[in-house]
Amino acid sequence: MSEVCGFSIDEYCVKVKDFHGGNLAPGLIIAGFMVDLACRNLPENTLFEVICETPSCIPDAVQLLTPCTAGNQWMHIIDVGRYALSVYDKYSGEGVRVHLNPSKLKKWAAIEEWFFRLKPKSEQDTQEILKQAIEAGTSILDIEKVTITPEYLVKKKKKSVSICPVCNEAYPSNYGALCPACRDDCLPYISETEHMRTA
Amino acid sequence: MSEVCGFSIDEYCVKVKDFHGGNLAPGLIIAGFMVDLACRNLPENTLFEVICETPSCIPDAVQLLTPCTAGNQWMHIIDVGRYALSVYDKYSGEGVRVHLNPSKLKKWAAIEEWFFRLKPKSEQDTQEILKQAIEAGTSILDIEKVTITPEYLVKKKKKSVSICPVCNEAYPSNYGALCPACRDDCLPYISETEHMRTA
Repeated sequence: MSEVCGFSIDEYCVKVKDFHGGNLAPGLIIAGFMVDLACRNLPENTLFEVICETPSCIPDAVQLLTPCTAGNQWMHIIDVGRYALSVYDKYSGEGVRVHLNPSKLKKWAAIEEWFFRLKPKSEQDTQEILKQAIEAGTSILDIEKVTITPEYLVKKKKKSVSICPVCNEAYPSNYGALCPACRDDCLPYISETEHMRTA
Repeated sequence: MSEVCGFSIDEYCVKVKDFHGGNLAPGLIIAGFMVDLACRNLPENTLFEVICETPSCIPDAVQLLTPCTAGNQWMHIIDVGRYALSVYDKYSGEGVRVHLNPSKLKKWAAIEEWFFRLKPKSEQDTQEILKQAIEAGTSILDIEKVTITPEYLVKKKKKSVSICPVCNEAYPSNYGALCPACRDDCLPYISETEHMRTA
């Protein structure tokens, strides 16, 4: 295995390290192989979306190797803590799920130590983990066919937009009489309501 | 205003269109100015994270213009449907929140029609919306100082990893005796448990 989605491993490493904030995490290499394996097992020309089961690393491989991003909402993150993703036809829901199979790590000691956090990060040999991740390629992964349930498939058209009478900001009208932030008082910040210059 | 985060508007448009799946949505232009305005109002060399209040467009501007991505978890999405983002010191929580102020759209008819969905997409003049978004720049935005609440600041170190006795996949041990997917039966797919080739 010397490529992911048409890029050489070296090309992929440069791209993903740059995008991911300058750090080439081993999880990005494994995630690259996951995306590659999943995409190779979809029928050609499928218009697809992606569900990641962890926010860790996998979303960045997806966003660099496929047209699916957080901002176009073709990539979804459901954080159940598993190192897995599903890639599926956005209309029929038919697709594949790929996950790292922990029982396949036995012959890759450095990956196993990293993945199971058996050593503090300062004692890990990052170069060896990256080397093993590249050598292991898709051999540490499992793939299965899945069908995504209908409520996750192509979203309905967006509704009209309202102004929230509390915050005076715009929000999708179908959320109710107030925007969810004001309705549920759920925002994680305190505002100093200090006006600053905007130019 | 002719730049966002050091890129000319043209350079930014090419980058973001390519990343966003080939479509230059007007929201990406506005989001670029939002990121630019927020970052210019943080003290230099601040190690920062970002909270987006909608998954729509804004996350892609953030990921292209800052080191914060979904996969490195320096970018967070809290979907309350508001066209807003906060950029803040990851340790102290001090930062700024920028949002599109709907009352400032009155002099930008094409943006207003698009933002409030006053016309079906087929009747909108996308080139005019993009042109107005570039001309408007930061003039349609508001900025305020905010302090992010402590529970959103730098995450604790990750705990050890367990194997879920139901699915046999790995997950963070602090989630409990089963992985959240098996515990809450919350996954959006049906598996055919069919083994496929992994190489």
